[in-house]
Amino acid sequence: MLIVMKPQATEENIRRVCEKIEAMGFRTHPIPGAQRTAIGITGNQGPLEPAEFECLPGVAEAIPVSKPYKLVSREVKSERSLIRVGSGDNLVTIGGRELAIIAGPCAIESREQAFIAAGQVRKAGARLFRGGAFKPRTSPYSFQGLGKEALEILAEVRRQFGLAIVTETIDPENCALVEEYADVLQIGARNMQNFSLLKRAGRSPRPVLLKRGLSATLEEFLMAAEYILSEGNYNVILCERGVRTFADHTRNTLDLSVIPAVKRLSHLPIIVDPSHGTGARDKVTPLARAAVAVGADGLIIEVHPEPERALSDGYQSLYPDQFDALMEQITAIGAILGRTTARD
Amino acid sequence: MLIVMKPQATEENIRRVCEKIEAMGFRTHPIPGAQRTAIGITGNQGPLEPAEFECLPGVAEAIPVSKPYKLVSREVKSERSLIRVGSGDNLVTIGGRELAIIAGPCAIESREQAFIAAGQVRKAGARLFRGGAFKPRTSPYSFQGLGKEALEILAEVRRQFGLAIVTETIDPENCALVEEYADVLQIGARNMQNFSLLKRAGRSPRPVLLKRGLSATLEEFLMAAEYILSEGNYNVILCERGVRTFADHTRNTLDLSVIPAVKRLSHLPIIVDPSHGTGARDKVTPLARAAVAVGADGLIIEVHPEPERALSDGYQSLYPDQFDALMEQITAIGAILGRTTARD
Amino acid sequence: MLIVMKPQATEENIRRVCEKIEAMGFRTHPIPGAQRTAIGITGNQGPLEPAEFECLPGVAEAIPVSKPYKLVSREVKSERSLIRVGSGDNLVTIGGRELAIIAGPCAIESREQAFIAAGQVRKAGARLFRGGAFKPRTSPYSFQGLGKEALEILAEVRRQFGLAIVTETIDPENCALVEEYADVLQIGARNMQNFSLLKRAGRSPRPVLLKRGLSATLEEFLMAAEYILSEGNYNVILCERGVRTFADHTRNTLDLSVIPAVKRLSHLPIIVDPSHGTGARDKVTPLARAAVAVGADGLIIEVHPEPERALSDGYQSLYPDQFDALMEQITAIGAILGRTTARD
Amino acid sequence: MLIVMKPQATEENIRRVCEKIEAMGFRTHPIPGAQRTAIGITGNQGPLEPAEFECLPGVAEAIPVSKPYKLVSREVKSERSLIRVGSGDNLVTIGGRELAIIAGPCAIESREQAFIAAGQVRKAGARLFRGGAFKPRTSPYSFQGLGKEALEILAEVRRQFGLAIVTETIDPENCALVEEYADVLQIGARNMQNFSLLKRAGRSPRPVLLKRGLSATLEEFLMAAEYILSEGNYNVILCERGVRTFADHTRNTLDLSVIPAVKRLSHLPIIVDPSHGTGARDKVTPLARAAVAVGADGLIIEVHPEPERALSDGYQSLYPDQFDALMEQITAIGAILGRTTARD
Repeated sequence: MLIVMKPQATEENIRRVCEKIEAMGFRTHPIPGAQRTAIGITGNQGPLEPAEFECLPGVAEAIPVSKPYKLVSREVKSERSLIRVGSGDNLVTIGGRELAIIAGPCAIESREQAFIAAGQVRKAGARLFRGGAFKPRTSPYSFQGLGKEALEILAEVRRQFGLAIVTETIDPENCALVEEYADVLQIGARNMQNFSLLKRAGRSPRPVLLKRGLSATLEEFLMAAEYILSEGNYNVILCERGVRTFADHTRNTLDLSVIPAVKRLSHLPIIVDPSHGTGARDKVTPLARAAVAVGADGLIIEVHPEPERALSDGYQSLYPDQFDALMEQITAIGAILGRTTARD
Repeated sequence: MLIVMKPQATEENIRRVCEKIEAMGFRTHPIPGAQRTAIGITGNQGPLEPAEFECLPGVAEAIPVSKPYKLVSREVKSERSLIRVGSGDNLVTIGGRELAIIAGPCAIESREQAFIAAGQVRKAGARLFRGGAFKPRTSPYSFQGLGKEALEILAEVRRQFGLAIVTETIDPENCALVEEYADVLQIGARNMQNFSLLKRAGRSPRPVLLKRGLSATLEEFLMAAEYILSEGNYNVILCERGVRTFADHTRNTLDLSVIPAVKRLSHLPIIVDPSHGTGARDKVTPLARAAVAVGADGLIIEVHPEPERALSDGYQSLYPDQFDALMEQITAIGAILGRTTARD
Repeated sequence: MLIVMKPQATEENIRRVCEKIEAMGFRTHPIPGAQRTAIGITGNQGPLEPAEFECLPGVAEAIPVSKPYKLVSREVKSERSLIRVGSGDNLVTIGGRELAIIAGPCAIESREQAFIAAGQVRKAGARLFRGGAFKPRTSPYSFQGLGKEALEILAEVRRQFGLAIVTETIDPENCALVEEYADVLQIGARNMQNFSLLKRAGRSPRPVLLKRGLSATLEEFLMAAEYILSEGNYNVILCERGVRTFADHTRNTLDLSVIPAVKRLSHLPIIVDPSHGTGARDKVTPLARAAVAVGADGLIIEVHPEPERALSDGYQSLYPDQFDALMEQITAIGAILGRTTARD
Repeated sequence: MLIVMKPQATEENIRRVCEKIEAMGFRTHPIPGAQRTAIGITGNQGPLEPAEFECLPGVAEAIPVSKPYKLVSREVKSERSLIRVGSGDNLVTIGGRELAIIAGPCAIESREQAFIAAGQVRKAGARLFRGGAFKPRTSPYSFQGLGKEALEILAEVRRQFGLAIVTETIDPENCALVEEYADVLQIGARNMQNFSLLKRAGRSPRPVLLKRGLSATLEEFLMAAEYILSEGNYNVILCERGVRTFADHTRNTLDLSVIPAVKRLSHLPIIVDPSHGTGARDKVTPLARAAVAVGADGLIIEVHPEPERALSDGYQSLYPDQFDALMEQITAIGAILGRTTARD
């Protein structure tokens, strides 16, 4: 923290600020300038609250210097994390050379729908299968998922197709059930700061796919991951899925610049969801290409055997042949960056 | 829903759209224009998904017409809802002539702190007391609240000072405990779309104070309330607490225009939180005045006996004498609009 | 500027940063901490660019400390500026005890329309008249204003009604014409960073009403004013008119918190435009009340004798009797804050 | 336009709306639904203003149907526009198979700097040269460009290196001078709605590179281009350069989804500026790759022989060897999409 005093601040004002800092157990470092004095603080373990100092007389501004996150940071662990998902036949490593491709329908609607979709995405080169069992919906009157029945279908999909299973958990109580069936627990954007759920997921044996909140800064996103790591679960995969802005030509604004920004600050892998990130089928493939080109560690994509009959998100789900074409394109782009897919 | 066809759409394109609509069990109303045809849809119960139609050939755009909310809407209930909080001595009605003033510290830190604060805000004219027992914090390393001990202190505050108690619940499991002690269950901004929590609150006998999410549109805000009402709890008080924008001179951007907008669409009362809405002590009083002037049904304000020693949010908490001055000003402004406070 | 080094930064890294700073002619102030070193910079006149240092090896972050604005700042001039507008009969002082009320139609459409509107707003208590002669419109096919003819009508309005005239100038060349007729040059939100226009207005003998850009931070807003002051024109009135956010229930999101924020940093007066700030007639009066309650120095409001026949912005223009009721309400609210209107 | 009536709207309300529409010379198409009536409008040439109708009694909402743009639209011209820039040796076609690569320093600082930069970018495969002569700067105290002297240097660069010249014009008066020297007139983001400048550029014989405003919707962006086309200049190249959002890890949020959105609606080519779009050197190359992968028609990139000595934007300028590596990568990615560069 750096405290910047006003030009007209008195000696008394400066002394009082220093006393406050020292009473907190920290050291002060006054820096007198031509126009005003600044005071550096050292010795604090965690971040301090700027406003704590800004309300003292003579203080112009308090500027945070340390970052609040620790375990997710490259300063603590400089090599990239590799997250191992599944086991045996369906073991996949996320964050390494191979792009993690997660595909499947928005929601599991029936055994038949899931099996057809799984066969299609497996053939096109996906190694992980997505499919909602519990669906958080904006309206209480919308389809909320098949629940446990869907989880059982997903477990069958794993056995039959050797795909690792990614599915969403929606509250701490629900976590126990989902982790019994899934290989990866997904936490949705609207739950990114559901701290009870984050803590529970932090005590799970399963890796967690954490989606960025609709208006989460990079710091908040990393702090949400920090909640999970701080409970002992170091296997977190971050996911950019678009943020909310004034722009209205897509449902959300996909923020691809967050990929290099995360890679600079954190050792965790990060993938991209171009389906929710755009909310429109015709934009999924171009943005999926861009995500791989920017350096993402993978993609999560909605694919449905018959999008026009989907119970949710049909309009942003790809047709199976569109997904196949997408895989071909991103495999070629990935190769330029030294990445592989199961399609190679 | 209105489907707008492209100028070059063929008869065949139009026929296919109509068939799809009729297959869904709805009626079509083609409107041929000079340049292009539009097709109205009637007979649908809930809202349709625009993108469902936008992927058909020849379709330029699909425009939603119906609103998705029902129970919160003035179309269903045109007179304003009065929410009765507490009982006997501490009975307060929210949404009527009297402004609902909720004040107290961010977090309950000790019996002594709570009692001093309660006495101060009661004297200044507050009739409801706020104080966090369970604190959702951005960092896992920050103070998370005293939990059950704080709830017991709050129950004592009610008995001693005749104040109705407002405190936050953070997950469905935690709800049972909080509703045992509190008069109003608060749901925080980060949980506005925690649907498991909304459903649980919808089955509670206590009124719910629902804060607007950081990037919630008005429609999403009302749909979150709809979740609570759809489970049977009609006692919901909305709360504007600032939204996230590019502006960086306040922590959030307080959106006061949402007050008249809510009053136009919904029968539910709405109050304002200028403490979180600005995040800076020197802006709380001006914005509290503005909130009353714009027509809000009340305020929720952080007041701490010694803000500089607060364990959380001290920088945005008012000193007791500042709160007293605020009450005087808003009582005068309220009077111009026909509103009263307990201070009158 | 404060340079924060990475924990693993070497002595050599630190030395190189210090050399760079000293080569720029500034002084360095190293602050060694437990985990890392920070380096304060003093002696620079203007702000430095953080990214200039962030690209050096071992640097984690560079944090700006000084503010870039000077002449608009309270640090340079601590007493509030009073802006004198007009002369003789229509002399009005903005920024003092009296609220500046600017009212009139969006665009001047005819002599008759202007005269009726002027009579109505004068009677209700406005002392300044607004009316567009040159209209910046989003579409090239929309009504662009009557131009010079409108300016002549405005000059007549001044003579006849003793109202000071506020009208928009749209480019540097156009400025000479507008300043011949108007008492205040208005610069619209879309031109807030039209630096050629700002410089030209800075050489004008007329006061300037500068509207905040749709996505301008407070710092950018003040820097735009700084452009005008730096050319010698110290008579600038700032105007909040709503910013662009994700919220879609109003055309713009009126950011009333900017009023106390400006008053803390600058000596310039600031008024509010609730007409553009909301874009909807039924929200103008509540937000006008809020603007006065928050401490604005005045209002600029669209009033039209017959809004439903207006050539532009009719939907957000008040009916004359609505404006009269508004004036009554804001006069009462202003009195609580020690402000007056011509209606008193 | 579609007018949606409230459920409780009377026959009289509906009649009055229809009369208003017919008085405007348009036709009405009532659509009675189970719960409420909607009224379609046809016969209007341009867009109508929703709020015009929303203030009538019984009206719930007015929903725009037609788009306001015409000349930029694919409905008017379905084949993609090819923009020819320069002539003879330095003729470049933008919008075709070849990616348009515009590179060079933020500002022209000297003949020597420009020549070195031009040689470097030419060799790496750029065919157009950028360099500011007139610089719009947020602060009046920052370097404002060398003006005419810079234009003369740019003309020499063209002759010497066969590069087409792209440089910014900042106001209508300045346009005449810039078009004498440049091959493409650039209009900056802050001037996107400087309508006087757009109209002047619309009468220029030179193609125009129009940057998206910081908070411009897609519709506003296209309407700004429409201003230029409506004056007779059909040679407009659009440019995405990042928009303003709450996100603070990059200077702006680069919105790559606007590329497929523009291609769906308009025949104009669109390129991307990853330098301003990110504001940080280490993010330029990843986002440049993403821009080509998403389908952009080209890139504009800041390259400086010695970024650490640049008079402006040095921190976001690439080193020449970084630009060379970037060209290699985007040439490879472009090839996958059937695009070429001069480097091939």
